[in-house]
Amino acid sequence: MNGTTIKQLAKELNLSAGSVSKALKDSHEISSETKQKVLALAAKYHYTPNPYASSLRKRKSKTIAVVLPEVADSFFSLAINGIESVAQAKGYHVLIYLSHEDFKREEQILSAFRSGRVDGILISVSEETSQADHIKEVLTAGIPVVFFDRIFDDIEAAKISTNDFEGAYEATRCLLERGCKKISFLSIAANLSITSKRVQGFQKALHDAHIGATDADVLLCSNDMEQNCRLIRQLLEQRDKPDGIIASVEKLVTPVYLVSKQLGMAIPDDLKVIGFTNLHSASILEPSLTTVTQPAFEIGKTAATVLFKGLEEKHFTLSAQTITIPSMLVERASTRGNQ
Amino acid sequence: MNGTTIKQLAKELNLSAGSVSKALKDSHEISSETKQKVLALAAKYHYTPNPYASSLRKRKSKTIAVVLPEVADSFFSLAINGIESVAQAKGYHVLIYLSHEDFKREEQILSAFRSGRVDGILISVSEETSQADHIKEVLTAGIPVVFFDRIFDDIEAAKISTNDFEGAYEATRCLLERGCKKISFLSIAANLSITSKRVQGFQKALHDAHIGATDADVLLCSNDMEQNCRLIRQLLEQRDKPDGIIASVEKLVTPVYLVSKQLGMAIPDDLKVIGFTNLHSASILEPSLTTVTQPAFEIGKTAATVLFKGLEEKHFTLSAQTITIPSMLVERASTRGNQ
Repeated sequence: MNGTTIKQLAKELNLSAGSVSKALKDSHEISSETKQKVLALAAKYHYTPNPYASSLRKRKSKTIAVVLPEVADSFFSLAINGIESVAQAKGYHVLIYLSHEDFKREEQILSAFRSGRVDGILISVSEETSQADHIKEVLTAGIPVVFFDRIFDDIEAAKISTNDFEGAYEATRCLLERGCKKISFLSIAANLSITSKRVQGFQKALHDAHIGATDADVLLCSNDMEQNCRLIRQLLEQRDKPDGIIASVEKLVTPVYLVSKQLGMAIPDDLKVIGFTNLHSASILEPSLTTVTQPAFEIGKTAATVLFKGLEEKHFTLSAQTITIPSMLVERASTRGNQ
Repeated sequence: MNGTTIKQLAKELNLSAGSVSKALKDSHEISSETKQKVLALAAKYHYTPNPYASSLRKRKSKTIAVVLPEVADSFFSLAINGIESVAQAKGYHVLIYLSHEDFKREEQILSAFRSGRVDGILISVSEETSQADHIKEVLTAGIPVVFFDRIFDDIEAAKISTNDFEGAYEATRCLLERGCKKISFLSIAANLSITSKRVQGFQKALHDAHIGATDADVLLCSNDMEQNCRLIRQLLEQRDKPDGIIASVEKLVTPVYLVSKQLGMAIPDDLKVIGFTNLHSASILEPSLTTVTQPAFEIGKTAATVLFKGLEEKHFTLSAQTITIPSMLVERASTRGNQ
C-alpha cells in the first residue's frame, strides 16, 4: 500500500485524521494506547510522513520570519540583504525579529509563530540560548526552520554556517607564522556553537604548533563596550601579556585598537591583531586590519534559498541540509611580521 | 448635526455607505455628479472624516512594514533597532523591505500593501524617488505612513528626520574654523531631501563666511565604491584641490581615507575630513574621524512611536507630525587645526 495517507489510516482505525496526525507527532493530547495502534498500522503500511505536508497545506502567508540577535553589526546587515534578495524574487515577505541576545525574548518570538503567521523561519540564536525546546515546538507544529550562522548542534534541522573552526585555525596559524609567541583569543558567549568551534580551532592550531593551550588564553568578553575595554586593558597590562590577539566577533575590534593606543602599544610591532569582521572600514584602520571575512551575504542567501526549496519541493529533505560556506583570511597591516 | 457619520449621509442621499466613502475620497469609481452631491451634503453638516476610521476598522494584522533603501550601513541598522524596540513592546510584527535604491521596486513594495497586509508603514525613500504617487495611494487606501530620515517634502504625512541643514552647516563651519580654504562636499542622489538640505547647509555656511559657493564644490558620488574612489582621486589630484572634505554619507568615508593615503595626503594636515556616520570604528581610524553623528536609533524609535500613536489614538493627527531630532558634531583628530 504505497502512498498511504493519514486519511486512509484514520478510516481504517475509525479515528479522525486530526487524531492520527497528532498520534504520529506523539502529541500529549492522544492516549498512548491510541498512539500504539496508529503507529502499528502506519508501520504495517510503510506509511512515510511527508514532513512538509502540513506546512504545504498551511503555506499561504507568503511570509518568512528572520530571528536575529541584533542588526547592529555588519554581519547581520549583510545576511539580511542576502535573505531579502531571495525572498523578494520569490514574492515572499520578510518579518524581522530581534532577540537582543535574550533567550526569554527568543522563546516568546518563536511561540507566536505556532499560530501559523509564517511559512518558515530563519534563525540565528541568541548567545543565551543553551537548549532548543522552543525551536523543536515550531518544528513539531510543521513550520520549517533553517539555522544560519549561530546554529544549534543538537537538533535535526537545516544549518547554514561558515567554517568557524578552520577560520580560527587559520587566523591562529597566521599569527604564529608572523612571530607571535603568546596569543589571546577574545570571545563572547561560551555556549554558542560558533564560539566553541572558533575556540577549538584556536586551541588546535596552538596544539599543532606544540604550544600548550590553556583556558586562560581565552578571554570571555560581553556586549558592554566599556567592560570589554577594561578587560582588554587588564590583559594588555599584565606582565605575561599577549603579542597577538584574535577578536572573534566584530564588536571586540574597536576596544582592542582603542586600548592598545591608550597603552602606547604599536600594532603590529608590539601586538598583532586579527578580527572576525566584514567591516568596510577594516582597510582604513591604522594599521589596516587583517580579517577573517565571513560570507555573510552568501550565508543569508543560501539559508533563504534552502528554506524556499523546502517549502516548494515535496521530496526535498530540508532537515538534512548542512551547508558550510568558507570564510576568507584577508591579510592586512595589523599582522605584518617583524623582519 | 455634530458627529455626522458616513452612514447618515448615505441614508439621506439614498446611496450606499461605500459609495459615499469613495466619493469623499474622490474615487474614480464615482461619477462627478454624485461626488458633488455628497460633498455638498457633507459640507452642510460639517462632516469631518476621521482619517483613521478605515485603518482602525482594518487594523488587525498587528504588523507594520519598514521600507528601507538598504541595511548595509550603520544608520539603517540602528534605525531598525529603534523601530523594533517599540514594535516588540507593542506586540507588533515588523516586515522589512529593501528598495535597494530602486524606485520601481519601491513602487512594487508599496502597491502590495494596499491589500491590507500591514496596519502602517515606515518608509525611508530610495535615492531614485522623485515623486510620491505610490505613497499617496497607500495613504488613500487608509494605511498610515510615517517617513523617517529620507523624507519626501511634498506630501502631507508624518516626517521624522534629523536637522540635515544644521548638521552640514556646523560641519562646514568646523572646517572653516580649523583653517580650511577650499571645501568639497561629497554627496549622492541630488533629488533626495536629506541631500539637498545638507548641500544647502554647506552652501549657507560658505556664504556666511563670505566664500563664494559654486556647484563645483559639490561632488556627486554613487553607490559604486570603485567609481567613488576614481572620482575622489580626480578631485584630489586637480591643481585647485580641496583642503577639506565633507563625506555626507557613510559609504563615502572609506574611499576618502583610501585615496588620500594612496596620494600621500596626510589627514588632517593636508586634508581635513568630516563624515556623516554612526560607525563605531570612527574612533579607531587613523586619524580618528570627526563625525556628524545622527540619532539613528532615536529616529527609528520616534517614527515607530508616532505611528503607533496614530494607530491607537482616534484624535491624533498623524499627518501633522513633523519631528526633527538633532545630530551631533563629534570632533576627533581628522579636523585638528594647523597650529
